[in-house]
Amino acid sequence: MPEEESMNRREFNLGLLGTAGALAFCYPVARTAPGSVPELRINGTRLIEHINALAEFGKNPQGGVSRLAYSEADRLGREYVMGLMRAARLDIRIDAAGNMIGRRAGSDNTLKPILFGSHIDSVPEGGNYDGVVGSLGAIEVAQTLAENDLITRHPIEVVIFQNEEGGLIGSRAMDGELTEKELDLVSRSGKSIREGIKFIGGDPTKLLTVKREKGSIAAYLELHIEQGGLLEAEKIDIGVVEGIVGINWWDVTIEGFANHAGTTPMNNRQDALLAAAKFIEAVNRIVTSIPGRQVGTVGRIQALPGAPNVIPGKVILSLELRDLDAAKIQMLYQKIRAEAGQIAQASKVSFDFKEININIPAPTDARIRALIDQSAKELGLTIKRMPSGAGHDAQDMARLAPVGMIFIPSVGGISHSPKEFSRPQDIANGANVLLHALLKLDRANLA
Amino acid sequence: MPEEESMNRREFNLGLLGTAGALAFCYPVARTAPGSVPELRINGTRLIEHINALAEFGKNPQGGVSRLAYSEADRLGREYVMGLMRAARLDIRIDAAGNMIGRRAGSDNTLKPILFGSHIDSVPEGGNYDGVVGSLGAIEVAQTLAENDLITRHPIEVVIFQNEEGGLIGSRAMDGELTEKELDLVSRSGKSIREGIKFIGGDPTKLLTVKREKGSIAAYLELHIEQGGLLEAEKIDIGVVEGIVGINWWDVTIEGFANHAGTTPMNNRQDALLAAAKFIEAVNRIVTSIPGRQVGTVGRIQALPGAPNVIPGKVILSLELRDLDAAKIQMLYQKIRAEAGQIAQASKVSFDFKEININIPAPTDARIRALIDQSAKELGLTIKRMPSGAGHDAQDMARLAPVGMIFIPSVGGISHSPKEFSRPQDIANGANVLLHALLKLDRANLA
Repeated sequence: MPEEESMNRREFNLGLLGTAGALAFCYPVARTAPGSVPELRINGTRLIEHINALAEFGKNPQGGVSRLAYSEADRLGREYVMGLMRAARLDIRIDAAGNMIGRRAGSDNTLKPILFGSHIDSVPEGGNYDGVVGSLGAIEVAQTLAENDLITRHPIEVVIFQNEEGGLIGSRAMDGELTEKELDLVSRSGKSIREGIKFIGGDPTKLLTVKREKGSIAAYLELHIEQGGLLEAEKIDIGVVEGIVGINWWDVTIEGFANHAGTTPMNNRQDALLAAAKFIEAVNRIVTSIPGRQVGTVGRIQALPGAPNVIPGKVILSLELRDLDAAKIQMLYQKIRAEAGQIAQASKVSFDFKEININIPAPTDARIRALIDQSAKELGLTIKRMPSGAGHDAQDMARLAPVGMIFIPSVGGISHSPKEFSRPQDIANGANVLLHALLKLDRANLA
Repeated sequence: MPEEESMNRREFNLGLLGTAGALAFCYPVARTAPGSVPELRINGTRLIEHINALAEFGKNPQGGVSRLAYSEADRLGREYVMGLMRAARLDIRIDAAGNMIGRRAGSDNTLKPILFGSHIDSVPEGGNYDGVVGSLGAIEVAQTLAENDLITRHPIEVVIFQNEEGGLIGSRAMDGELTEKELDLVSRSGKSIREGIKFIGGDPTKLLTVKREKGSIAAYLELHIEQGGLLEAEKIDIGVVEGIVGINWWDVTIEGFANHAGTTPMNNRQDALLAAAKFIEAVNRIVTSIPGRQVGTVGRIQALPGAPNVIPGKVILSLELRDLDAAKIQMLYQKIRAEAGQIAQASKVSFDFKEININIPAPTDARIRALIDQSAKELGLTIKRMPSGAGHDAQDMARLAPVGMIFIPSVGGISHSPKEFSRPQDIANGANVLLHALLKLDRANLA
């Protein structure tokens, strides 16, 4: 549908203001959307066209995109997305942090806004779906509402957060966590975050204007690809996210004694790498020793001095634990530390744990989960409750408001790769669930 | 004792030519040394003075030396050592490979020469004893013989091999293994081996003249620090080396599948680092599962991509096995490969083994070991038979002649470090054992 600027005015000529629950209706004038409009659907073909068009910005020769936050590809991609927001008849602005916000008034503007969206920046050599499905899906929902002259009770704001991949910068500005010091960090684009914010039209001197107060937002919804392979493997249409897991990262230093690999007998070694091997096995054993979806990973390792003919005297490795339950992470960590103590004694080495980063778990809102469940079921889709093992802007929004997240399958569970792919039908399903969950939420009076 | 050039002539005025076994004697004129001269001793004080003087060449501020082969420090150190050889009344020459050779005629110059020596180059930030004790100890033995007007039956050659630390270059030239291609390799001095050989007075175009034929040398003896901690721990004076171990080095590549550490459940991972951990434990378990002094080491490891939040998809690590018995190394290797196959299956990864370097074991000669035993015992020293876990020039000489090696204690087992240390008494003991073993060998008619 072509862009029609004049339609913006029509939204305020409300026909059925305040009338809810009407299942049969015609579309002569804009009206307040009822909580349930069973036959309403987003335009899946158009949404896929938009995703494919956005994929041109930062396109890699080998497929996928490198649309790093603050790069020229990011800037051009954002311009394209702003065009889509205008076409969806949203009132757009760029906040001081550089987030793109498209607002549409509600029928009752005393109500708090409902926010929904995601991000369009990518990792280097990333895919075309991470963030994009949720961002363009949100705009498609807004456009569907506009085309059907449906106005929500709450104001709605489509939010395209900036620099999600580089540390949730946009959403952390919104919840007030972004520090002055972080602005000087150099992002993967080569620009500092401060320079990047200017580059995309923000104003880093006015970040305080971006911050929203806890309780000032009715709810936040985010549609996203799963980035894992569970939904596809189990042939489930929709993942209803129970929360974004907490992520605890420690660096572990193991000190033994470097020595000659030829002249030091086996029983006289203080081999830091052998101790590290026992530790890596212990992490796996402890994490898998209890039921649940907790994960534990040693992803980085360095052994010093690192020569084939020298017994390693020192190993530094990363330990990462994730779960929806912070207490479970702590329990696992204590078990791992206890076992490290035993390994240290048996292997004549020492262990030192340094906390690098702690992201607390961000549960989604039980009432919103129920609305997503219901929306998916009404659309004839199968659902699965699941944690989000990856971080998302929704985890920051959870500090401000009740949040809900909708996952769609990732083929092969592959993400952050040119091979990332989600099927068009799954994308359309996800956007339709977002649409209907939004309409129900608009009527739900959560606060 | 001051240098006396005129003494060289005296060696040929043989008094007791052909007379062996005389235990009581006086020193009026040079005579053929008997196989046993119980009261004869090297000058330990002088030897320590020489070691300390050589330590000035390449001295590090924090102690120890960086006397890399072909460096200016190496060149100056070699000049100093040539002075010592001259003082010991040796006829010195530099062979085309850059080895320094000090020869002294025997009473029967139809006999093959007995060679003895070591090296004076060091690793970066090495110690003052590795190679030096054997090199200056050999010169001290020659000087003791000269001062006592003792002439051996066999011609003797003190050999200071060049660039031992950079791959036994000098001794490999002598046994004909050094290839033309290797000459272009850049050594740690920054010079190619070809340039380095020229720099120290050799002629890389004439390497064929350096090669000795198998059977052309009566025997080779080398005194060396243990570089391990066994002798010191057991309070043993002298190690009688059974052989230089074979060293087999493989690079092992483990391929799994890199994936998101948050979204990939524990039971759905192909974690190459977890498989590597199991492998490292298996290597240790297999190597220690049978009696003996074999060692197995994983000293180098790299996990890719190497991020805390990514499950490692690929690990490359080194596997090194050492033993005196090549068949035992093969047996251990086959066990390790079999276990790797099991780990591969259980962990859904693949293992690939690439042979990087194979040094076959170099046993010492049983008759020479017995002569070293006897010499040490006659000096009132305790002995222990042991393998050399480290490589030495003697392993190349073993291809040409029967060899013997004498170890003295390394304090704390520390080597290749500024903290490397051997006590003066142990150094003197070692040189005395070398002296007496040489005298016995001279009478032993091994060939």
